[in-house]
Amino acid sequence: MAYTYTELNTPLRTIMTPGPVEVDPRVLRAMSTPIVGQFDPAFTSIMNEVMDMLRQIFQTNNQWAFPVDGTSRSGIEALLCSIIEPGDKVLVPIFGRFGHLLTEICERYGADVHTMECSWGEVFDEEEIIKEVKRISPKIIAIVHGETSTGRMQPLQKLGASCREEDVLLVVDAVATIAGTDIRVDEWMIDGIVGGTQKCLSVPSGMSPLTYNDRIEKVIQARKKVERGISTKKDISEERTRDHPPVRSNYFDISMLQDYWSSRRLNHHTEATSMLYALREGLRIVLEEGLEARFTRHKEHEHALVTGIEAMGLSLYGDPACKLPTVTCVKVPEGIKADSVRHMLLEEFGIEIASSFGPLSGKIWRIGTMGYSCRKENVLFTLGALEAVLIRHDVDVHKGEALQHALNAYQSKQKNMITQ
Amino acid sequence: MAYTYTELNTPLRTIMTPGPVEVDPRVLRAMSTPIVGQFDPAFTSIMNEVMDMLRQIFQTNNQWAFPVDGTSRSGIEALLCSIIEPGDKVLVPIFGRFGHLLTEICERYGADVHTMECSWGEVFDEEEIIKEVKRISPKIIAIVHGETSTGRMQPLQKLGASCREEDVLLVVDAVATIAGTDIRVDEWMIDGIVGGTQKCLSVPSGMSPLTYNDRIEKVIQARKKVERGISTKKDISEERTRDHPPVRSNYFDISMLQDYWSSRRLNHHTEATSMLYALREGLRIVLEEGLEARFTRHKEHEHALVTGIEAMGLSLYGDPACKLPTVTCVKVPEGIKADSVRHMLLEEFGIEIASSFGPLSGKIWRIGTMGYSCRKENVLFTLGALEAVLIRHDVDVHKGEALQHALNAYQSKQKNMITQ
Repeated sequence: MAYTYTELNTPLRTIMTPGPVEVDPRVLRAMSTPIVGQFDPAFTSIMNEVMDMLRQIFQTNNQWAFPVDGTSRSGIEALLCSIIEPGDKVLVPIFGRFGHLLTEICERYGADVHTMECSWGEVFDEEEIIKEVKRISPKIIAIVHGETSTGRMQPLQKLGASCREEDVLLVVDAVATIAGTDIRVDEWMIDGIVGGTQKCLSVPSGMSPLTYNDRIEKVIQARKKVERGISTKKDISEERTRDHPPVRSNYFDISMLQDYWSSRRLNHHTEATSMLYALREGLRIVLEEGLEARFTRHKEHEHALVTGIEAMGLSLYGDPACKLPTVTCVKVPEGIKADSVRHMLLEEFGIEIASSFGPLSGKIWRIGTMGYSCRKENVLFTLGALEAVLIRHDVDVHKGEALQHALNAYQSKQKNMITQ
Repeated sequence: MAYTYTELNTPLRTIMTPGPVEVDPRVLRAMSTPIVGQFDPAFTSIMNEVMDMLRQIFQTNNQWAFPVDGTSRSGIEALLCSIIEPGDKVLVPIFGRFGHLLTEICERYGADVHTMECSWGEVFDEEEIIKEVKRISPKIIAIVHGETSTGRMQPLQKLGASCREEDVLLVVDAVATIAGTDIRVDEWMIDGIVGGTQKCLSVPSGMSPLTYNDRIEKVIQARKKVERGISTKKDISEERTRDHPPVRSNYFDISMLQDYWSSRRLNHHTEATSMLYALREGLRIVLEEGLEARFTRHKEHEHALVTGIEAMGLSLYGDPACKLPTVTCVKVPEGIKADSVRHMLLEEFGIEIASSFGPLSGKIWRIGTMGYSCRKENVLFTLGALEAVLIRHDVDVHKGEALQHALNAYQSKQKNMITQ
């Protein structure tokens, strides 16, 4: 007999992880809009608006900027598999878990993967990477911008120019940084870049916005395929002239996604309507706040959080020079079970913070300050709750200091604004 | 300077296509629920509920039943690429566009694809397919259940037993039929099957529910991989014992999706929270209505629509013996521009019906009666509007007949219910 399910009834949480984070209420509301068909002019105009807004967020004049319908790694796989042909050399500098993910994707698609690694908690000097690019001479370099597993951010200001000189394609995973910290796609000469929705954009997981320039498009067009059942004679005869193998995935073939997002509107998938409504609203909110103001807001709340954490007597993990401004990694005090603290935060306070992966498992907590979750009340509530939970775990914290220091940080910021 | 975007403001449409169709208002509402984190017990219990409800909808006792985060074809690609190794023989019987899609996906993953085709508008005698299975002896047969491009449905009652005898894996694309017409996964001995959300489930596009049995799982487990950065020593040593190549896609590797949906909850992607809320609500509504009642409702509205269309003097396309009950294909009268009629329906009445693909382009209209769109007022409104638009296009229809006959069809159904 079928069990009768009740209506959806979820607790309201304070989500202070590196994603998924709290969704802006305006985005939630946009998702409850009745849908229209995928080729309805009312919908294709929304597709065009989203492309335009993505260009602004990525700070690019690229023609192509659209989401892949899938979670963040779907966009990364789409971009990589559309340019990797079996045997292609790819260089992946690894400074955390998501660097390993890049190697996994590249290997599966038959790339000849070369890696360089630094200790977790650090990033690379760009000159080191440039030296390795020159030595290996890869077709592609794939690199993470914000590594949530270690809370580090890789500087990318210089790498692009060298890649241009060496005729290497620079592909960046900006899942954790898009709309949270500055990313200048054109100025930094990034060829292809992928973002996520569920972090600083404060849109639910399920779409992966990307953009790429004409250097990438050229590679993709050389492997272009139009699906049987909808291809014209012209498509088929053009395909015969191409001497590059087609992309191995149908779903992730960007030559087909591009046709779908172009004025040709060639049917590939059925665009995820409600998620696109959500993305449109999320992007609109970012542009309304303004990129500079948004990046500044993220830094201010990070500063208050870090001030409070340190005032409590806890230590941060990793090299402060390359700290990811949207994720704060806190060392778990000696003898304390990391997960016990997390569980008590969730059960007693409804606050979620994150554990960690691989070698850092049980050694650090990761606290996000991303998008809509990145608010004063969330930072203050988290500091107060963490102090209480640590006291319950017999940790010798400096009682009452965290909130006082965080409040001071916020108030001195307000004073600065008044005297400006 | 950044252009200022207004809030989302879409027209309300009557969507009578073969998908995406109108979303149930309860599903839209569920999507505006604030999210919780992916490893929050409140969320993992929703994941388990969705698995349980999917088993009921697929009429199976399979352990594995979960959605892939992507549009419908993402589930098809995930299932196929997780079982196809390069060189594997796959048989694809083609009776429309989505049969071609299956061949495209299989070829890209290196399969040795064998096809059999029948005329568009017809389906196969199952005995013919069984004969070909015996002749070719493939590892896999991949076949469409409901082909929306031609509005046909392939009977699948006998094929499974023969596949079992021949040790062939039977994989079915049920994107257009799930929750709209009977699919008995266990009784019909289907090994793996994939549905879509944006058709008879009346959930927005963006997820692809699938289920598979232990015969498929065995193939997948033999290629299992755990991602570097989160794998344990045990995982790595187990991988060394496997002599089958890993799945080419990371995103679509079902061995990893399965670990994520299992009690191990091994992080792969970040589940698309709001889409899962939507799917849960959509499945709950189906089970509340009851499968039998839902299938009967779909047939009744189809009957009223077909009665009205024929009373108008129009003809249906294709063999009536294998008509897909959720899609009705109507021949475009001689000399009439198919798209002009569609555009007038949309612009004047806010009704969307579908055009068609490839050889049928411009020759038929496709009208869906799926899920929440499959309602009396929608059927009646569409018939009345179509008659008016055809009169405006100088088609000699039998004026006023369509609605009278459709009303009769509904009323005789009511009488039957009263006398029962």
